[in-house]
Amino acid sequence: MEQADCIVFGEHILTMNDRLDIVHDGAVVVRGGVIAEIDSAENIRRKYSSACSVGGQGRLVLPGFVNSHTHAAMVFFRGLADDLPLKDWLEKHIWPAEMRFLNPEFVYDAVMLAGLEMLKSGITTFNDMYFFGDSTARASKQLGIRAFLGVGIVDFPTMTAKTVDEYIGNADRFIDAWKGDPLITPCIAPHSAYACCTQTLKRVKELADRRNVLTTIHLSETEWEVAQLVGSYGKRPVEYLESIGFLGNRLLAAHCVWVDDREIDLLALRGVAVSHCIESNLKLASGIAPVPKMLAAGLKVALATDGAASNNDLNILSEMSTAAKIHKTLANDPTVIDSRTALLMATRWGAEAMGLGGVTGSLEPGMRADMITLNLQKPHLTPAFDLYSLVVYAAMASDIEDVMVDGKPVVRNRVLLTGDEEEILQKAREWGRKVLSAST
Amino acid sequence: MEQADCIVFGEHILTMNDRLDIVHDGAVVVRGGVIAEIDSAENIRRKYSSACSVGGQGRLVLPGFVNSHTHAAMVFFRGLADDLPLKDWLEKHIWPAEMRFLNPEFVYDAVMLAGLEMLKSGITTFNDMYFFGDSTARASKQLGIRAFLGVGIVDFPTMTAKTVDEYIGNADRFIDAWKGDPLITPCIAPHSAYACCTQTLKRVKELADRRNVLTTIHLSETEWEVAQLVGSYGKRPVEYLESIGFLGNRLLAAHCVWVDDREIDLLALRGVAVSHCIESNLKLASGIAPVPKMLAAGLKVALATDGAASNNDLNILSEMSTAAKIHKTLANDPTVIDSRTALLMATRWGAEAMGLGGVTGSLEPGMRADMITLNLQKPHLTPAFDLYSLVVYAAMASDIEDVMVDGKPVVRNRVLLTGDEEEILQKAREWGRKVLSAST
Repeated sequence: MEQADCIVFGEHILTMNDRLDIVHDGAVVVRGGVIAEIDSAENIRRKYSSACSVGGQGRLVLPGFVNSHTHAAMVFFRGLADDLPLKDWLEKHIWPAEMRFLNPEFVYDAVMLAGLEMLKSGITTFNDMYFFGDSTARASKQLGIRAFLGVGIVDFPTMTAKTVDEYIGNADRFIDAWKGDPLITPCIAPHSAYACCTQTLKRVKELADRRNVLTTIHLSETEWEVAQLVGSYGKRPVEYLESIGFLGNRLLAAHCVWVDDREIDLLALRGVAVSHCIESNLKLASGIAPVPKMLAAGLKVALATDGAASNNDLNILSEMSTAAKIHKTLANDPTVIDSRTALLMATRWGAEAMGLGGVTGSLEPGMRADMITLNLQKPHLTPAFDLYSLVVYAAMASDIEDVMVDGKPVVRNRVLLTGDEEEILQKAREWGRKVLSAST
Repeated sequence: MEQADCIVFGEHILTMNDRLDIVHDGAVVVRGGVIAEIDSAENIRRKYSSACSVGGQGRLVLPGFVNSHTHAAMVFFRGLADDLPLKDWLEKHIWPAEMRFLNPEFVYDAVMLAGLEMLKSGITTFNDMYFFGDSTARASKQLGIRAFLGVGIVDFPTMTAKTVDEYIGNADRFIDAWKGDPLITPCIAPHSAYACCTQTLKRVKELADRRNVLTTIHLSETEWEVAQLVGSYGKRPVEYLESIGFLGNRLLAAHCVWVDDREIDLLALRGVAVSHCIESNLKLASGIAPVPKMLAAGLKVALATDGAASNNDLNILSEMSTAAKIHKTLANDPTVIDSRTALLMATRWGAEAMGLGGVTGSLEPGMRADMITLNLQKPHLTPAFDLYSLVVYAAMASDIEDVMVDGKPVVRNRVLLTGDEEEILQKAREWGRKVLSAST
């Protein structure tokens, strides 16, 4: 008998591999943090022994979800100011709260809450763009969640830097600090083409190329942004970034709501990946990205929650459901974004969008063992005709039972193993009281 | 000390009364099935004693949700055929399955599953339109869920009747059987203006007036329906129903996706209530009802899940979130359908739409005691700045802990008290196997 670190059993295993193989009555063998083998439970039991066994009958095993764009620490502003125009929301509520409270301790405590929520929603990898990246990285390591982290860069001073030189230096140091970490993948995160000038974006590109890291940016989120860029440069956002040589297959662009057909072709030509943040875009009345057109053009589109201040949760299951449904009506075609496509956007395509395609996002031998079990024995998941449909259209985050990241169990029967949930909630409530007292 | 049947405690109580009063550290006294008093927990404890105590710290108490349009028994077709054109879905999958399986036992077992799912999602009242209404009523009584039930009427023969005379006779008998029941309110449910001719609709109207019951109908769900009616009668659906005297304030119309400004004014003028089934409409690519215009015109709009074959769950929380978000973007205004409005559409306005405004939908002395507790001590509900926002934008069905209908606890700590959940799921799986074997 060979020794396994852990064996994960499933009545069904959605591998999300190229052929979308489903293994019934199957098992996934985990050894040294990677998936060693996937086969029938019977064969695996005959070949391996392990002290750790997860899942079983009535459980669906699938890759952990990938949240391809968020601002995790903003979870402390969840519901602080909803149903308001974007300008009021930002200028009267979010920015004042950020100016007053942001510091490394706030970000660490907030990411502990955000990571807890994400893990319990089945998210095993997230892409974050915010300030105090070291705090985000430390909290992610503590929780055991995989993170693709960008240090925010803007042209104006904030609490983390005063000049572009300083921002670029911070980004460089952040890469030094975390490159090679098994869970943390550093990237560079210029905020947007309206908050960074051409010179700044060129320096970002140079740094990203030199350090061989990916870049992530907000792109064409609102009509206002398009008007700004057209006003400043005479070009729409994607055309502008193309003109300065910024587009490429190492760029992950969040939103891309207001892109015309020519811009979609440009994004496809350059191999840019897109984060689709449907619930945030809807709630802020920003618009709806033309995802079916993007997919038809061959673009890689991944799903994302955006920050909890605008969404208001960190739940990829509801993003899948909303995205799959809304594009059917906009396209006047119920076959658009079927449940398989939606689940690919929430798993493998998300990983690939971050350059982590060989690491996570599908269950295949040699991949890091990032996976979740989902309890199918629920009223809203009965009867079970189509597993993809159940996951995309009916499952809730609370159906996720066990979560493993990098071969390590981090949630077991919905209990966090890598931190004290009550303590995390308690700290969050304390910060909440401070934020509330300052914003009213 | 006065005796109460049960006291429900909440860190916060959202009454959803006219003033949207919130009682902090409050309690609701239940006696004889009705709400006797709502006050601070301190005052209630001083005045009442009870052997039954529900809720407490960290719990939000609110009226049970109202699902204003569904086909509960179709839960056995959940996910049977998704991502397909409406015609294929109906003609190749749903209708053949219905023709083969529908009988009183199927409907009873299916409504037990649907009711279980609804209760555990916080729904305490639902409006159903389907066949074999006695089975639906019996299952609802068994579960202890409040139901507003219509016997389906169409012009063509089905397994329940061969002629319009027979359908009308069935509806009349159904009203005899259930009128006056504390939980069941009978209504009449002609399917639509395309499946019922003018003569049938006039007979329905006559019966509804004579028996003093409400009527519910599918109205302007698809562009196809509009074209049909224009073709048959030279009028759009709402205009046609107006022309035959069918509209009135005892009519609940589901969908109303394709209504123009003149039709909205007509619906408002006649006091017709509307069921907004946003997730079903999106998933079937039917379109998006102009709800902000309807609200501005003074229409009563309630939320609904539609059947689980098209949605695919029976969860009003996700309907609230989707409706509130999508209309902001369509209106290009993030203030549209704020969280208070969404919660009214899911509670009081739903009850009022069914003529049950004095019975359920808000927490006020004299109302029947239909209420739920929601556990706020969850990562995705922390911190808590705005309770309406939390419920509408972040809460999940699994956060509902206790459910009381008509003063009787029916779910306690997410466990059904009025039936055996495992037995209900087991029967559902058996029916699922039969349906699957017949449809493939």
